[in-house]
Amino acid sequence: IELAIDGGDHPDTIATLTGDPLAGVAVNYTGERHELDDVRLLSPVIPRSKIVGVGKNYADHASEMGGEVPEVPLLFFKPNTSVIGPNETIIRPEGVNELHFEGELAVIIGRICKQVPVERVPEVVFGYTIANDVTARDWQRADGQWTRAKGSDTFLPLGPWVNTHLTLEEVGKLDIETRLGDEVRQSGSTSQMVRGVAELIAHISRSITLLPGDIILTGTPAGVGAMEPGDEVHVQIDGLGTLSNPVADQ
Amino acid sequence: IELAIDGGDHPDTIATLTGDPLAGVAVNYTGERHELDDVRLLSPVIPRSKIVGVGKNYADHASEMGGEVPEVPLLFFKPNTSVIGPNETIIRPEGVNELHFEGELAVIIGRICKQVPVERVPEVVFGYTIANDVTARDWQRADGQWTRAKGSDTFLPLGPWVNTHLTLEEVGKLDIETRLGDEVRQSGSTSQMVRGVAELIAHISRSITLLPGDIILTGTPAGVGAMEPGDEVHVQIDGLGTLSNPVADQ
Repeated sequence: IELAIDGGDHPDTIATLTGDPLAGVAVNYTGERHELDDVRLLSPVIPRSKIVGVGKNYADHASEMGGEVPEVPLLFFKPNTSVIGPNETIIRPEGVNELHFEGELAVIIGRICKQVPVERVPEVVFGYTIANDVTARDWQRADGQWTRAKGSDTFLPLGPWVNTHLTLEEVGKLDIETRLGDEVRQSGSTSQMVRGVAELIAHISRSITLLPGDIILTGTPAGVGAMEPGDEVHVQIDGLGTLSNPVADQ
Repeated sequence: IELAIDGGDHPDTIATLTGDPLAGVAVNYTGERHELDDVRLLSPVIPRSKIVGVGKNYADHASEMGGEVPEVPLLFFKPNTSVIGPNETIIRPEGVNELHFEGELAVIIGRICKQVPVERVPEVVFGYTIANDVTARDWQRADGQWTRAKGSDTFLPLGPWVNTHLTLEEVGKLDIETRLGDEVRQSGSTSQMVRGVAELIAHISRSITLLPGDIILTGTPAGVGAMEPGDEVHVQIDGLGTLSNPVADQ
């Protein structure tokens, strides 16, 4: 969990630990360290319950999709079987032509909670990571509900690690950038969110219990576009690192 | 799992067992038996991954909802936090006026699987139970995506037990009836499904991996309607028993 790639006492190394902070089990460092280049990072979390996404939560993206910002937050689920880790391959399923990237800030829930008031949201947040809310745009148009379009295998790259030290205020002004190969395609700031992290969690938890490890996706800025087999997509957020994934056909 | 309420050697009793047939752990009977009246049945399964529902899969229900049968199956997810067991209370959230029952046949997946051909579906089915796909009709209209409308807490009563002995052919001709109090409100047959169990599983698994314990909801016949606090709703399917739940306000 402690990943000191950006500095600290042991840059470019990771410390191993025992236990699971999301299962209420004490976490202890073993004292062991590994070079980052020698390990394969997996998704930092596989939710045991759910991933809740929010559509059109950046006004410029709502507008590029030909729509207004929804009056009520536009929520959708992705299943845990859609999760992959850093550098794992995003697979374009047979029958999909328009497979889009959507770089997003992801919130990881740390406590079982329901009907969380906005001001108590910091108590239920475990940390933050990066997500790519991969979307089959053609299935999204054809199906009505976004289940296949957003819930297919490999459609949720997460990582590379979890930052547990950010305040809500800090999280509200992070630069977010998505690159396809070397080309910058999305460039925004979490300050452009229509509804911030606290408001989203308060809204979702009004009728839905959130569990430790559940993930809230917070929406994507303008600039979404299609990935082709052979591409590599990178989502970068200040302080959270870069989430990179190659793309291939099924 | 062996529930001999409809006859057998030990009617109205249940046998206790160790292990978990959905976790690849050997299941053994302890030899112990309890009267059904002395135990509280929980939901027979809590999915570790997902519940996939299908909208408008009975032509007469599609028509009462003012729509055609969709060209592509209309899929949606419900989270495992929406599951309750027999006799547990369905809660109508604040802000919801039209909380509808939808009696349905539920399929429980028994094996990890993907891209299952129609003819091999029997290999991946663990068994069948009854579901009430509770739906907040006003949220369904307002939100666009059906996440809150179908995914809120208590919106998926399941049970009372799992029948692991039915063939696909038998499952295709079961009478299904939903009663609100004493009044019959839905009365149909699984033979009226637009797409049967095998076709649905083949379709969903084309791009989505299914895990043991995942649940497929197969749609509801005509006659859906609102439940009010104080009501009790009963869904009955031949050979699967009756799933009864009271309704209350939050």
